[in-house]
Amino acid sequence: MKFGFFDDETREYVITKPDTPAPWINYLGASDYCAIISNNAGGYSFSRSPKSGRILRFRFNNIPEDRPGRYIYIRDKKDGDYWSVSWQPVGKPLEKFKTECRHGLGYTKIASMYKDIYAETTYFVPKNKRCEVWSLKVENKSGKRRKIDVFSYAEFCFWNSELDMKDYQYILYTSKTRFCGDLIDYRLQFGDGKSKEAFFGSTGNVKGFDSVREAFIGQYRSEKNPLAVERGACSSSAQEGGNPCGSLHIGIELKPGESKRVNFVLGEVNSAGEGRKIIRYFRKNDSLKRELEEIRKMWEKKLGAVQCLTGIKEFDTMFNIWNQYQCHTTFNWSRSASYIEAGGRDGLGYRDSLQDILGVVHSIPAKVRTRLLELLKGQTSMGCAFHHIQPLSMVTGEGALPVKGSVYSDDHLWLGIAVGAYIKETGDKNFLLEDVPYIDKGSASVYGHLLKSVEFSLNNVGPHGLCLGLAADWNDCINLYGRGESVWSTILLVKAMDEIMQLADYLGKKADALRLKKIKQKISGGINRVAWDGKWYLRAYVNSGRKVGASSCGEGKIFVNPQSWAVMSGIADGGKAKFCMDSVYKYLNTEFGIRLLSPAYSKYDREIGSITSFPRGLKENAGIFCHANPWVIIAECIMKNSTRAFEYCRNILPSAYNSSSDRRKAEPYVYSQFTTGKENGNFGQTKNPWLTGTAAWCFVASANYILGIRPDFDGLVVDPCIPPEMKGFTVKRYFRGALYDIRVKKIRGSARPVMLLNGKGLKSNRIPLQKKGSKNKICLSIPCQQRQR
Amino acid sequence: MKFGFFDDETREYVITKPDTPAPWINYLGASDYCAIISNNAGGYSFSRSPKSGRILRFRFNNIPEDRPGRYIYIRDKKDGDYWSVSWQPVGKPLEKFKTECRHGLGYTKIASMYKDIYAETTYFVPKNKRCEVWSLKVENKSGKRRKIDVFSYAEFCFWNSELDMKDYQYILYTSKTRFCGDLIDYRLQFGDGKSKEAFFGSTGNVKGFDSVREAFIGQYRSEKNPLAVERGACSSSAQEGGNPCGSLHIGIELKPGESKRVNFVLGEVNSAGEGRKIIRYFRKNDSLKRELEEIRKMWEKKLGAVQCLTGIKEFDTMFNIWNQYQCHTTFNWSRSASYIEAGGRDGLGYRDSLQDILGVVHSIPAKVRTRLLELLKGQTSMGCAFHHIQPLSMVTGEGALPVKGSVYSDDHLWLGIAVGAYIKETGDKNFLLEDVPYIDKGSASVYGHLLKSVEFSLNNVGPHGLCLGLAADWNDCINLYGRGESVWSTILLVKAMDEIMQLADYLGKKADALRLKKIKQKISGGINRVAWDGKWYLRAYVNSGRKVGASSCGEGKIFVNPQSWAVMSGIADGGKAKFCMDSVYKYLNTEFGIRLLSPAYSKYDREIGSITSFPRGLKENAGIFCHANPWVIIAECIMKNSTRAFEYCRNILPSAYNSSSDRRKAEPYVYSQFTTGKENGNFGQTKNPWLTGTAAWCFVASANYILGIRPDFDGLVVDPCIPPEMKGFTVKRYFRGALYDIRVKKIRGSARPVMLLNGKGLKSNRIPLQKKGSKNKICLSIPCQQRQR
Repeated sequence: MKFGFFDDETREYVITKPDTPAPWINYLGASDYCAIISNNAGGYSFSRSPKSGRILRFRFNNIPEDRPGRYIYIRDKKDGDYWSVSWQPVGKPLEKFKTECRHGLGYTKIASMYKDIYAETTYFVPKNKRCEVWSLKVENKSGKRRKIDVFSYAEFCFWNSELDMKDYQYILYTSKTRFCGDLIDYRLQFGDGKSKEAFFGSTGNVKGFDSVREAFIGQYRSEKNPLAVERGACSSSAQEGGNPCGSLHIGIELKPGESKRVNFVLGEVNSAGEGRKIIRYFRKNDSLKRELEEIRKMWEKKLGAVQCLTGIKEFDTMFNIWNQYQCHTTFNWSRSASYIEAGGRDGLGYRDSLQDILGVVHSIPAKVRTRLLELLKGQTSMGCAFHHIQPLSMVTGEGALPVKGSVYSDDHLWLGIAVGAYIKETGDKNFLLEDVPYIDKGSASVYGHLLKSVEFSLNNVGPHGLCLGLAADWNDCINLYGRGESVWSTILLVKAMDEIMQLADYLGKKADALRLKKIKQKISGGINRVAWDGKWYLRAYVNSGRKVGASSCGEGKIFVNPQSWAVMSGIADGGKAKFCMDSVYKYLNTEFGIRLLSPAYSKYDREIGSITSFPRGLKENAGIFCHANPWVIIAECIMKNSTRAFEYCRNILPSAYNSSSDRRKAEPYVYSQFTTGKENGNFGQTKNPWLTGTAAWCFVASANYILGIRPDFDGLVVDPCIPPEMKGFTVKRYFRGALYDIRVKKIRGSARPVMLLNGKGLKSNRIPLQKKGSKNKICLSIPCQQRQR
Repeated sequence: MKFGFFDDETREYVITKPDTPAPWINYLGASDYCAIISNNAGGYSFSRSPKSGRILRFRFNNIPEDRPGRYIYIRDKKDGDYWSVSWQPVGKPLEKFKTECRHGLGYTKIASMYKDIYAETTYFVPKNKRCEVWSLKVENKSGKRRKIDVFSYAEFCFWNSELDMKDYQYILYTSKTRFCGDLIDYRLQFGDGKSKEAFFGSTGNVKGFDSVREAFIGQYRSEKNPLAVERGACSSSAQEGGNPCGSLHIGIELKPGESKRVNFVLGEVNSAGEGRKIIRYFRKNDSLKRELEEIRKMWEKKLGAVQCLTGIKEFDTMFNIWNQYQCHTTFNWSRSASYIEAGGRDGLGYRDSLQDILGVVHSIPAKVRTRLLELLKGQTSMGCAFHHIQPLSMVTGEGALPVKGSVYSDDHLWLGIAVGAYIKETGDKNFLLEDVPYIDKGSASVYGHLLKSVEFSLNNVGPHGLCLGLAADWNDCINLYGRGESVWSTILLVKAMDEIMQLADYLGKKADALRLKKIKQKISGGINRVAWDGKWYLRAYVNSGRKVGASSCGEGKIFVNPQSWAVMSGIADGGKAKFCMDSVYKYLNTEFGIRLLSPAYSKYDREIGSITSFPRGLKENAGIFCHANPWVIIAECIMKNSTRAFEYCRNILPSAYNSSSDRRKAEPYVYSQFTTGKENGNFGQTKNPWLTGTAAWCFVASANYILGIRPDFDGLVVDPCIPPEMKGFTVKRYFRGALYDIRVKKIRGSARPVMLLNGKGLKSNRIPLQKKGSKNKICLSIPCQQRQR
């Protein structure tokens, strides 16, 4: 079943059935102020940190679901009937209540029509302002003069999201609200004397207000039927202590056909000063339009760095709009704030952020550079990294080392891959030479940091010469401890060494490059010797020496990651690549994506770890863990197996399951963390949308491998691997300041690819660097049938 | 406004208006399984630990409030109309829906009448079983045959209350539910392989079930209008992952006048084995009656240790029933589980538990002995204690020392007072000699532990020779740090030394007693020298040497605790006692109780601490902190100022404000932590009921000081201090195995008290120990006007 459609023209997803199988959300704002909003106006806001800067409260996993939010109620003065502009929370019968939600890039527009009143709220976070705007337009579609009362409502949070959920003995006695003539002022002083301020105001003529939650809602009521709205009047509540809220009451009269606009503004700034200034600003006629245009331009620029036309609409929609949008979201908020990630932590997951970089480095390289520096500062002088860093409150110095048993075997190894991607995109050689401190002591050049990351892994190997699994590798739930070894982390080490080797070459450090190459070959050989199971690669050896992911295992016989990465890293020699990728297809593929392993574990196994504690088919225990899917796509592209690569791509492509949303449940415009596997009764339910490494890697798989446009040190490689159904494509891509207008077409019967740069033939599929500011036309003809490797 | 009344006959509080100004709750069960339930059947359950053994979920500080709970829905088969036995969550109009809730000792009974169906649910936790019973009786009060469908509903929690509230990425993919013919089986395996089990079953014929929350409730609905109930049928939902619930559907036919009973049972035991056994047990006719009788007998015994008749009903109700009941509750759950205490911690607040002991030592001395040992094991070999200990998971050994800055100046000092009370109650001299380990290293006799506690305080004094304030003293929010000194902690030290000195005497350790006496005198002299402000005692000196609680201060001129404790400890020499207690009455008394200080702080002062960060009149910042009130009552009794003592007693007596519940908000049958002070707009609102040291101390003030019956080493002292309105009283009290039937009467004109023991005159007001098993009659005549000291 469908609940909406993609409007690519406006770059919006349009929800036409508001009773979506889960709240379908959007992220407004960028790094300073973020507002998460659902299609029913539920959601929360925070300033800088979802952990300690929470402004609007949200009740996660709640009944009723998706509450509270940014509600605007309308009450007909004549008969007292009231509704909300969004379907929920009042929830009028859908036969009489017509509604539409448009999630756009950086804004959400919710409109409804009820009793001939058309109402439309545009929610957005202005650029460079620590506030959010709810801009309401109401229009009288009836033939009679109408009098309506409008009530806004938001429930404030106590900033510290942990205390807010737990320490009611403290937190309920800390806040102060008051009304200052035109806006509600909300402030709170913490026990250490630090204080926080927020405001809620309107550009309309405020007729009444409530700043006490219970006064607005009333006892034994909810957001569905607030007392103030039912009564048609607020009660001028303000108090010290209790639960603060913001509600403003505005009376509106409309002649037939007349429409009016009123803006509500909520923000985390000093209310008397900055707050009032912001409201004054939004009283001006053109402010709204100007701010929305700023946001449009920002996204135009961000997404404009690469755009494609392939003729396959579902692919283009994701590639050009939603996948890139999601990449920016994960880059901004790591894994800290969604409807699933309750925001109890802020800061950056180490490996998460290093991978998120891959999805935005072409669009915002300067921000990526800053982020890389933040992350490099979270690396220890031993080479390993903290699994999670908090740039806002990071402690450095001698004592700053991860506690025993908390080091992952992969975190630090992503550095080489992320830095490699940044250097290839930008050619910023100086970055590699920049001196950056370690978190505990000493410093080194970025390049030195990378060598250190390899060194740590080389120093931590087990009895088979493979990397120790430590706390976990990419798979949080494989906890090998002791002498347990991760085959996959060892393959990641090879891939990281390969990237760093290239960087050494780029810096002219030939000796380093040679040394890395030799070690790499030795390790690759070792993997092929001790970790090849016959038809695929093993996943691990546990502490006692048992194999994981072997055909001899009762459960967990085959895992996907060692196979895809064996191809990605180039270690799969002989026929092993084809063998293992065929095994993936045979044993792990489903119509909803590739499972992480098979068969699922049914018994807890301490030596393997918590993966064996999950119910079968959920999460890592044989769920379809989406993040691991693009790696298979990339591997199949490397194998030139375009059909299978695209089959995998389409199976997890959100836009491709728009019409089966009733089964999938999650938003059809973003990737999710996982889809439940076959063993679960809800096979095919897609879970934990938005903040997942799936976003960045699916973008890399699509851009760099399916379309095959890959930045390299000295130019742009064009190496497509497109399926038969794609006849060709065009891509516009900015690279190091020049525009590349690339047209790829399939030529029937053509034996070899032919590439023209501005009309001139090229010897390889590598476009040499062109002048900054130049516009270049590239034409590549490829044979209809690609040769499979 | 009243919402109910006390039924002292049945020892119940009866709520007749269900829309109480806050959820009014009750605690079912004792230490192994606890169920908290409100008058609208909201609440949660846990087994052993509210932190890690949470079985039923609760949404704290929620909108809608007080959800979820233990709901029973009834649906009329004929017209599909449905309601809940409790008013909420369906919330039928109160004109048509008649209801009553009876909170009894260890059970709650909620009854309602709607459409001529009388329904009544009795909720209780059977003794010595890890389960709870919801026993439903339905009766057809109409003249027609009726067919109804009954649906039970409970929402399971994921045991770990922290993860349950935060880590949805994990917790939503861990549970498994299934239906086993007659009961719902719910289990969960944690990442470390540990698993938990619970069940939900019924003694009725189960027609249908749901074990998936969303399936029962339905999307965009709530407990108010569950889909399954509206439709009249469950959907046999079961799944791995998601939110588990328990709902059983039972069909009932009733002839006119007929009544039927069905029991629902929920527990944390293996469902196939123990669970089914429990359900079979409750299928037997007499099981219900027997279990309820067991509970009745248990409370009869607990409360029977002391009972009074004073002629002042409000006082007797609290003394005989509710205050004692609350004392047992605080003893059981410390400060870990209420509607305010969200249960994020379990275990025992150190000083909290030592004070809670004072309210139950006469009733359950053996349990107190065990608790004292637990607490003594939380003391360090330095003498100080952990502020909070968790007997279930306590770490001991060399490393087990409080982190720097976390030691309170009072925790350890309550040991002497609690042990003293236990020894006086029981005469258990051996206890003092028992060897008990310190948490970090070494061990000592209990008596040795007490000397150590004094030693720590003597080793930590500041420039005026007063105890350092450290992290805080009894007042969590006075954080003096550095050289800051707490006058109050110093007075507590004197009082503790006094108790320990008596114990030394009791043990025949004369030298110790003499030494303690000398030090005590020296410190008392010091306090009178450096901490007397002219009309009252100071509260503290801050790090920089400024005074706190001095007439020269702009704010926080006078604090109550140094005054009451100066009298309680006997340090107030000359006229100081009268002076300081008169100042309390003049500056701190209000109609709702005594404020902690005056005037409230309006500016943050880092040297005083977080008390200055609260809004004025809230919590410690000049709120009426109830815990500190009984200390004043005790002091006034010591001064023989009976009128003022009883005025203070009545001002905070919950039963006395039953008819002003609309202002007070909290339950009128238990003490609360504080009442908002004058400076707050909501002056007189009573907050944070149930788990407060107020309970134990109000009981001590009433029993030991107003009624004046005080256990001592060698007998029972009878030293009443009753107000003019109380003409006399009788008390039955068990003491060291003998019953004392005490009658006190006022004799007009009598000059001196006269006391008869079994008809024979006594020289003093001290009854010598009588034989175990003996029943003794004591008659005390006192003059109408007591002489004030």
